[in-house]
Amino acid sequence: MTTADSFALLAPWLITMAPVGELRRDHAVVVRGERIEAILPAHELATRYPAIATLNLPDQVLLPGLINMHTHSAMTLLRGLADDLPLMTWLHEHIWPAEQRWMGHEYVSDGVRLACLEYLRGGITCFNDSYFFPDVAAEVTRAAGMRAVMGAPVINFPTPWAADMDGYFSRAMELHEQCRNDALIEMSFAPHAPYSVSDAAFVRMRDLAAQHDLRIHLHLLETAGEIADSVGEFGMPPLQRLQQLGLLNEQLIAVHMTAINDADIELLAETGVHVVHCPESNLKLASGFCPVWKLQQAGVNVAVGTDGAASNNDLDLLGELRTATLLAKGVSGDPQAVPAASALAMITINAAQALNMADRIGSIEPGKQADFCSIDLSDPDTQPVHEIFSHLVYATSRQQVRNVWVAGQQLLRDRQPLRLDIDQINQASSKWQQRIGAARA
Amino acid sequence: MTTADSFALLAPWLITMAPVGELRRDHAVVVRGERIEAILPAHELATRYPAIATLNLPDQVLLPGLINMHTHSAMTLLRGLADDLPLMTWLHEHIWPAEQRWMGHEYVSDGVRLACLEYLRGGITCFNDSYFFPDVAAEVTRAAGMRAVMGAPVINFPTPWAADMDGYFSRAMELHEQCRNDALIEMSFAPHAPYSVSDAAFVRMRDLAAQHDLRIHLHLLETAGEIADSVGEFGMPPLQRLQQLGLLNEQLIAVHMTAINDADIELLAETGVHVVHCPESNLKLASGFCPVWKLQQAGVNVAVGTDGAASNNDLDLLGELRTATLLAKGVSGDPQAVPAASALAMITINAAQALNMADRIGSIEPGKQADFCSIDLSDPDTQPVHEIFSHLVYATSRQQVRNVWVAGQQLLRDRQPLRLDIDQINQASSKWQQRIGAARA
Repeated sequence: MTTADSFALLAPWLITMAPVGELRRDHAVVVRGERIEAILPAHELATRYPAIATLNLPDQVLLPGLINMHTHSAMTLLRGLADDLPLMTWLHEHIWPAEQRWMGHEYVSDGVRLACLEYLRGGITCFNDSYFFPDVAAEVTRAAGMRAVMGAPVINFPTPWAADMDGYFSRAMELHEQCRNDALIEMSFAPHAPYSVSDAAFVRMRDLAAQHDLRIHLHLLETAGEIADSVGEFGMPPLQRLQQLGLLNEQLIAVHMTAINDADIELLAETGVHVVHCPESNLKLASGFCPVWKLQQAGVNVAVGTDGAASNNDLDLLGELRTATLLAKGVSGDPQAVPAASALAMITINAAQALNMADRIGSIEPGKQADFCSIDLSDPDTQPVHEIFSHLVYATSRQQVRNVWVAGQQLLRDRQPLRLDIDQINQASSKWQQRIGAARA
Repeated sequence: MTTADSFALLAPWLITMAPVGELRRDHAVVVRGERIEAILPAHELATRYPAIATLNLPDQVLLPGLINMHTHSAMTLLRGLADDLPLMTWLHEHIWPAEQRWMGHEYVSDGVRLACLEYLRGGITCFNDSYFFPDVAAEVTRAAGMRAVMGAPVINFPTPWAADMDGYFSRAMELHEQCRNDALIEMSFAPHAPYSVSDAAFVRMRDLAAQHDLRIHLHLLETAGEIADSVGEFGMPPLQRLQQLGLLNEQLIAVHMTAINDADIELLAETGVHVVHCPESNLKLASGFCPVWKLQQAGVNVAVGTDGAASNNDLDLLGELRTATLLAKGVSGDPQAVPAASALAMITINAAQALNMADRIGSIEPGKQADFCSIDLSDPDTQPVHEIFSHLVYATSRQQVRNVWVAGQQLLRDRQPLRLDIDQINQASSKWQQRIGAARA
């Protein structure tokens, strides 16, 4: 175990998310090694922990580390490469050609490192990734000290990561082996989408996921067009096909879900499928609206992700949550939909549940991992302070994140990353800007 | 004339908005006094202006100062006071009682000063305000060195600003007199909404606006409910009533406009009414969706505003533009709707046109006022840099605004305000936090 000494964090506001909506004034959180040991009123700290090293967080809210539930981290290098285009033009004419040209160890390594820097400075401690070379992404993330679930890609066609279906599965199980005893990195299956993955592959990963207790992280029903295509090719809509294949259960993390009706929502609630909402990517590509409030009212667990920077174009989860919350009100026609405190659950405890990690992360409770971020409300842009949850969801920007810890290790201090080298990351970004630019010219 | 000496600004990227979408690499903008004198390639500066003081803006985009087209600046003190509520509950049970209690010189003065700080640090050089005590707001804004159009309120019921309709009009004309020779502050009429302003008052302001060449800044069709109410009370929908009253022309700035059909859009296009879109406020209050792309395609001039911080809850115009652009794609179902370069027009040149100030502001052209902001793209969150317009609209945050000038005067330097005192403003915000909090407890 990599331990820091024990320490205590003292904050004027503590949001535990246990239960959702709980706000404690002037509390201390005591950390021992990688875990939370205790939560107590500030005035009891000196008596109960007389010798403990204490870090004061004036004007700051301490809350669970944020969890970004859908990412393609390496794609950060393609940020803003092609915008204002339909999904298929964007994919076929811009993103896939660029990936075909650049995909490999150096591209993934530099891209994930840039993404980790953006995540950390935005309060994100854990991300759920789906991309090629997850082994390289895992290595970079480990070095950054962050937590992640790396999705092993599965797709019907050959890529630099694997030549055929057997190749995808053998590389996935190698990744599983590598992550087995890793404290911070887990693996999942990341089949691309129902239209690009065969029945045989779905069945195979279903069995492996059940055997090894793994999540399946899938783009699903991003656009209405997928339904007609699936009926044409498989004789039924994607959701019904997945149901027949035995994929609809609490191991499935279904991303996007804009094209769903009330019967689908009922099916999702019954089967325990987790939904990840990526509002800014869906809006930008005009993919449709995920009915977040209906899903939540039906009892479906909904979390939020930024998607990759090529379609968003940032990895700002706090901003994404704001869009998700505002859009949920607009789409449902109900200004009381997804109120602020419960909104925050979508990037903390709901996300942890979706990842099957709620026993370890997503809330601040004794025994859980010490994953936190602190957000400074002293900025004039968040003055005056009448309501904390409203401020966090509707007014705060990620630039107000001051400190971040993962498993008891501080990774960001007063906005400075402690393990990542900004100059080196900027140099790598410049190199890719030149390379990608030259290839397009 | 308050003149700075002549100076030149040198930037790697210059966005003039003349025409929309123009991007010049490595150019200099020469300022003399309050105006732009010349724009020239950087390498010609030394020959043509050998002795000029030059400020280098490395890694920065220089663009026209941003124009926030719908604000209630003083309401910044109510930021986050009440959220997740229906419009009428929010107004009647929270906002109006707070305003009734606190409205006056000190409240407006402190609130506007806090708003000006937030505007400036977000690249906003000009705002179009609608609130009580616009004379006080004008005084604070003048001292801050900013540009604004102050709306003189007109509403059917008595307030601390005026006791009756004659009072509203006499105070409006006093404000007009005060702003007459002001280089930075103009006035407009700001009738609250069709449901709270009488026919007689509309006719009176129509005539005064025509006589003095003034804009009329009106909340219009914020919700579908207004239509039925207007039919009940006036025998016709609000837009038709305003048409009959002679209000539909290019002097009208119509804010919100979520409840409009294709015939309405045609009428707006024919009459030259300007539309101001406030997407985040509309989403948060679940008011409906303004059909921005349809309006633009019909030839209606559309600008963007943040609305007040009590319903948004920030005054982040760059963020508001991002929401506007993404939402326009989602609502129209067209990912090519409102592409990035034209999006930027909604907070610069379109806004200037709406205010009848396009001869002075909204673009960077010789002879126009020297109102600029510069945005630093060296932040890792906007690396790599493939496309400037995409970055500004989809990836940049207002915290990357580094410098701001209004009428040739620098008001923000490396994010530090030069005329506003942050400590003093924070103290005032704390005072109001205590006061408002104590009254609610």
